[in-house]
Amino acid sequence: MADAHVFPIRVYYEDTDAGGVVYYANYFRYFERARTEMMRSLGIESSRLQDELGVAIAVRRCMAEFMRPAQLDDMLEVETRITTVKGASFMGEQVVRRDGEDLVRLDIQLACLNLEGGPVRLPDDVRAALQDS
Amino acid sequence: MADAHVFPIRVYYEDTDAGGVVYYANYFRYFERARTEMMRSLGIESSRLQDELGVAIAVRRCMAEFMRPAQLDDMLEVETRITTVKGASFMGEQVVRRDGEDLVRLDIQLACLNLEGGPVRLPDDVRAALQDS
Amino acid sequence: MADAHVFPIRVYYEDTDAGGVVYYANYFRYFERARTEMMRSLGIESSRLQDELGVAIAVRRCMAEFMRPAQLDDMLEVETRITTVKGASFMGEQVVRRDGEDLVRLDIQLACLNLEGGPVRLPDDVRAALQDS
Amino acid sequence: MADAHVFPIRVYYEDTDAGGVVYYANYFRYFERARTEMMRSLGIESSRLQDELGVAIAVRRCMAEFMRPAQLDDMLEVETRITTVKGASFMGEQVVRRDGEDLVRLDIQLACLNLEGGPVRLPDDVRAALQDS
Repeated sequence: MADAHVFPIRVYYEDTDAGGVVYYANYFRYFERARTEMMRSLGIESSRLQDELGVAIAVRRCMAEFMRPAQLDDMLEVETRITTVKGASFMGEQVVRRDGEDLVRLDIQLACLNLEGGPVRLPDDVRAALQDS
Repeated sequence: MADAHVFPIRVYYEDTDAGGVVYYANYFRYFERARTEMMRSLGIESSRLQDELGVAIAVRRCMAEFMRPAQLDDMLEVETRITTVKGASFMGEQVVRRDGEDLVRLDIQLACLNLEGGPVRLPDDVRAALQDS
Repeated sequence: MADAHVFPIRVYYEDTDAGGVVYYANYFRYFERARTEMMRSLGIESSRLQDELGVAIAVRRCMAEFMRPAQLDDMLEVETRITTVKGASFMGEQVVRRDGEDLVRLDIQLACLNLEGGPVRLPDDVRAALQDS
Repeated sequence: MADAHVFPIRVYYEDTDAGGVVYYANYFRYFERARTEMMRSLGIESSRLQDELGVAIAVRRCMAEFMRPAQLDDMLEVETRITTVKGASFMGEQVVRRDGEDLVRLDIQLACLNLEGGPVRLPDDVRAALQDS
């Protein structure tokens, strides 16, 4: 669990608000796209998890710090790093950056749920892939 | 099919973009909220359609005209009127208004689909309710 | 700062995701609608703050806990409570509830910014209104 | 005006709804990302238009046909083609495709507006670039 995954995101009109900057809730969309691509890079696809294994990865808790705003047409990078993997959950750190400057930081705890929403163990190959990331 | 259904909507930051007005795609969210409430007022709930009857109402085609922009904190009204009800689809007209002035107009055709996405007849009570609206 | 502000929110298709529940980032939209209405109930409108006073209230930091998911057609309540008011920022607690059950909890810190994004003191009438809320 | 611009888009949870497919209003977000990238490929950036030239490109009218739904994790392509360029507006055709199959088609008319929302002529270099596209 040493390397960070980096994912580029462009800011479009849809992401901004009348204050002229990215609307705060939309950073959470960015963070989830980056987590999804980090997982995909490990061979884990959301649709396969749901359809074949009957589980979903859900956000259990998160803490965000908004330091500087992103703006229309900005080219951003989201860095994602897994920090802890447990039996039925894992934790990570994510940062939205522009030109090397941190804009928004996130600490996040994710849980593995079955389709009824109850906690279940992470599938073995998923846990192994996350631990090796 | 004489009366129109009217639904109030407030504009929040989430709805606006860096141009200082409501982002064009978000009017389609407003229109769908208004259609959902029009249906609910007829005793038809989306979740019941999906869970009990195994059908969903999907947009098949729409034509929108954007005349004037809505802005942050505006109090809007969405008027919804069913114009035609067929066996497996129906059509309607919707308008977003502010103080009696038309901002965005929509002509829409909706289809009844089964959970595999194929066209199916509207359930009898739904069709009857739409025809009496 | 004793009373909580309560704001009703209905769940529409736009709010849900393929997991069948409300998408996690959309709770932050709900929380902001509720904060906006809490402020409006105190006589403070976002558009007036921005246009007349040249300030905006921005999220500086937040911590969310997702306990149970909301679903399509659910009728929710968002409770908002201001806990601390300082010179240029204030803090609050928010909860999304369904039938009296907590679904999502938020601790939030908000800052007053000028239109260049720098921190400024809360306008006197805004601070007074928040302290009396 | 012969070549079409093609832009890839991945479907994330944020784009889907409880019906298990992409929410209809979100295709309009996809279409706008693709238009923005088509413009950027011609050297036209939204933020420069707004900040330097005091104009914005707004949707005036559009007609969408929804043929097949996109799903979570799908890799899509949006094709954008300018069909007509006038003094203060232009028209185009857009298609969302998956594996060569049309999912959603859009006919769109866009207008050039000043910052007060009134119609203005397209800046000369923008019109020239659109005509050569």
